[in-house]
Amino acid sequence: MPDKSNYGKGELMTAEIIAVGTELLLGAVANTDAMYISRELAAMGINVHHHSVVGDNESRLKAAVELAKTRADIIITSGGLGPTYDDMTKGAVAECFGLKLELHQPSFDKIRGYFEKLGRECTPNNEQQAWLPKGCTVLENSCGTAPGCAFNSGDWHVIMLPGPPVELRAMLTSGAIPYLEKLSDTALASRHVRFFGIGESALENELGNMMISSFNPTVAPYSADFEVYLRVTAAAKTREEAFSMTQPMVDKLVEMFPNNVYGVDVDNLEQTVSALLRERGKTVALAESCTGGLIAKRLTDIPGASELLWGSAVVYTNEAKTEMLGVPGELINKHGAVSEPVAIAMADGILAKSGADYALSVTGWCGAERSDCGAQKSGVCGANSGNIFIALAKKEGETRVLNITYGQSRERGRMLAAGHALKLLLDELKREKNT
Amino acid sequence: MPDKSNYGKGELMTAEIIAVGTELLLGAVANTDAMYISRELAAMGINVHHHSVVGDNESRLKAAVELAKTRADIIITSGGLGPTYDDMTKGAVAECFGLKLELHQPSFDKIRGYFEKLGRECTPNNEQQAWLPKGCTVLENSCGTAPGCAFNSGDWHVIMLPGPPVELRAMLTSGAIPYLEKLSDTALASRHVRFFGIGESALENELGNMMISSFNPTVAPYSADFEVYLRVTAAAKTREEAFSMTQPMVDKLVEMFPNNVYGVDVDNLEQTVSALLRERGKTVALAESCTGGLIAKRLTDIPGASELLWGSAVVYTNEAKTEMLGVPGELINKHGAVSEPVAIAMADGILAKSGADYALSVTGWCGAERSDCGAQKSGVCGANSGNIFIALAKKEGETRVLNITYGQSRERGRMLAAGHALKLLLDELKREKNT
Repeated sequence: MPDKSNYGKGELMTAEIIAVGTELLLGAVANTDAMYISRELAAMGINVHHHSVVGDNESRLKAAVELAKTRADIIITSGGLGPTYDDMTKGAVAECFGLKLELHQPSFDKIRGYFEKLGRECTPNNEQQAWLPKGCTVLENSCGTAPGCAFNSGDWHVIMLPGPPVELRAMLTSGAIPYLEKLSDTALASRHVRFFGIGESALENELGNMMISSFNPTVAPYSADFEVYLRVTAAAKTREEAFSMTQPMVDKLVEMFPNNVYGVDVDNLEQTVSALLRERGKTVALAESCTGGLIAKRLTDIPGASELLWGSAVVYTNEAKTEMLGVPGELINKHGAVSEPVAIAMADGILAKSGADYALSVTGWCGAERSDCGAQKSGVCGANSGNIFIALAKKEGETRVLNITYGQSRERGRMLAAGHALKLLLDELKREKNT
Repeated sequence: MPDKSNYGKGELMTAEIIAVGTELLLGAVANTDAMYISRELAAMGINVHHHSVVGDNESRLKAAVELAKTRADIIITSGGLGPTYDDMTKGAVAECFGLKLELHQPSFDKIRGYFEKLGRECTPNNEQQAWLPKGCTVLENSCGTAPGCAFNSGDWHVIMLPGPPVELRAMLTSGAIPYLEKLSDTALASRHVRFFGIGESALENELGNMMISSFNPTVAPYSADFEVYLRVTAAAKTREEAFSMTQPMVDKLVEMFPNNVYGVDVDNLEQTVSALLRERGKTVALAESCTGGLIAKRLTDIPGASELLWGSAVVYTNEAKTEMLGVPGELINKHGAVSEPVAIAMADGILAKSGADYALSVTGWCGAERSDCGAQKSGVCGANSGNIFIALAKKEGETRVLNITYGQSRERGRMLAAGHALKLLLDELKREKNT
């Protein structure tokens, strides 16, 4: 937690984030920029007490900056660096610190070069993007035309970043964070420990004080795509030293949750499974009923999937189960489509058809409701009970079956089923690797 | 656009949104609550000049409310209504308006009933949720335990909503919007016109002044899942009158973009396709290469898909194309997997195997890069060229083929390919329906 970090020379800095853009006030987009910036500041042990959003309105932006000056040491803006008339962030912010803008020739050359490369005309208004506060540190935009900037004025450090999230995130990493790190004598290293099959609150309960009391490294929970991950961040003289300081905590977490931690510093389950399949030169084929192609979709989100994923038979109907996988109609009639025998027959069917090393099958009931509020229908939002059978068949060795039941939204249920299937394969790959 | 709307009695109200939650300042989640609230306010012609975010900190929350009182008529908070010690929004906000909290027995009874139903103990701290500002209008929470509230005090109207987005959205619709509508003598109606195959900026160019100058109904563009939609909102004495006032604009938009508008007041392409398949009693089967199950996933996102979608052969490898669909290996060798003949053979293959009324196939190159910044590799973020063939085969009539090329991220490319395939089927279903 930031206010417990020993970041910097002991002094604790406070930052305020000001997002500029009428589209935010109209609700056209969510303020993800403030989220990305806040994550990085939290990891650096910099306090954030306020986010504010103003439209493309010079006087309101200036008022927001003047207010921020009264309550923060670091002021970070996002948006309003572009070429159009309503992009006035740099001029307005600079004025709040008595600075003038001047043309930054290298930036202008880069902008012209960008348009030349695309064979498009560099209209005059594009020059505006290269006008930056006199004497500022220019932050290059590797994803777009508008450069960002950072400067120190009196008691304040000011950083201006572009609005488009992909540009902002790249510039955070390449420009803003290094600039902020220079403000202190410390370097930072962050690790990401990924969990599956445990909720955020359950995880926080298990960790108890460990999470709250730990301050170097700090441990902070985040969730994405129905999964939880912990970010472990350490501060030290050098990045290497900081990295090594994270290791004992990472090891401890892996040891504490052997069945839930599926990877460290990886993006997601599908990436982890893909990497291990590739490392071991194995292939997988899928037979999906209730997940309806979601597992195949997730595995093919990872470039190079064609070397690992033979294919998937999305057999949403019983006819398809018989037609594509040779699951006997009698078996379905006898046990029902959502049953262990059918899950096994599906996995065995696609394994035989594909000749892959592994076959995963999923058959189940993921619920009829949408993930939005189903209270009127069920009393609890989007809740409904699901029963799912997952089978993993292998060229050698016997087929394993997993049965999960849950009460959640349809969307969540499908993600959960896909996740459990990927986790089952991952655990098998790890087990084989270690034997 | 709000400041052009003739909402209410002509007077223009200004709202400020204050989100409360340390998790927002830590970057654990994005402030989607402010987005949802802003959308509704924009549609009602209520100006929003500021969003602000503070943590679970009473003094900073009070300061934010006092500041909002100096620049807004309507103050809407989200978050901090829960049962834990750090949920202090109601007390702090009420104090800013000299109000006391009192126990609202019906809310407390509802909370107790909720816990009884779940067979869980209603711990004492849960009573806190039923303490509301004296004399307020209680806003029921159909998705959770914490009620919201609204009250008028002096020049201000104050609305407090829960933080969890699903609860907030439900309460916006059922409680907050009706409360705000009562402040004026107008009722509102909003329509959503959904587009495919045209970008937001291109759409805005085409519409030109029509969008900016139109004020009753107003027309505002939004985008979601790589698609654009226009929200047409009218204000009138009654909802019926407002609705009928939107119709000419909706008709005009449909007429202006016959090839891009795929539906009005629908959620997405898959829902629209599913509804039309159901209406006409038809079924579809899929053969997906580069989309890797994404089309099947989208169609099975819609409850009841098993009556419409036979299944999908996700044939990511050439072997799978031959094994599951009977696409001749020579055909693939001769023309390449990404070719018109292979797309046709895939569609014909799954059509024959499934006996469905329609078969959609997709084969293409969606690019190797991730959707995040690929500038270092390609010079433009996540950009890469894709070439995709989509075939639609029918029980009766000949197979149609669509070839699309684009330069975008892998993720966007896959969504685009899936979208074009669904749109191709939708257009065919509409054509047949009208002949």
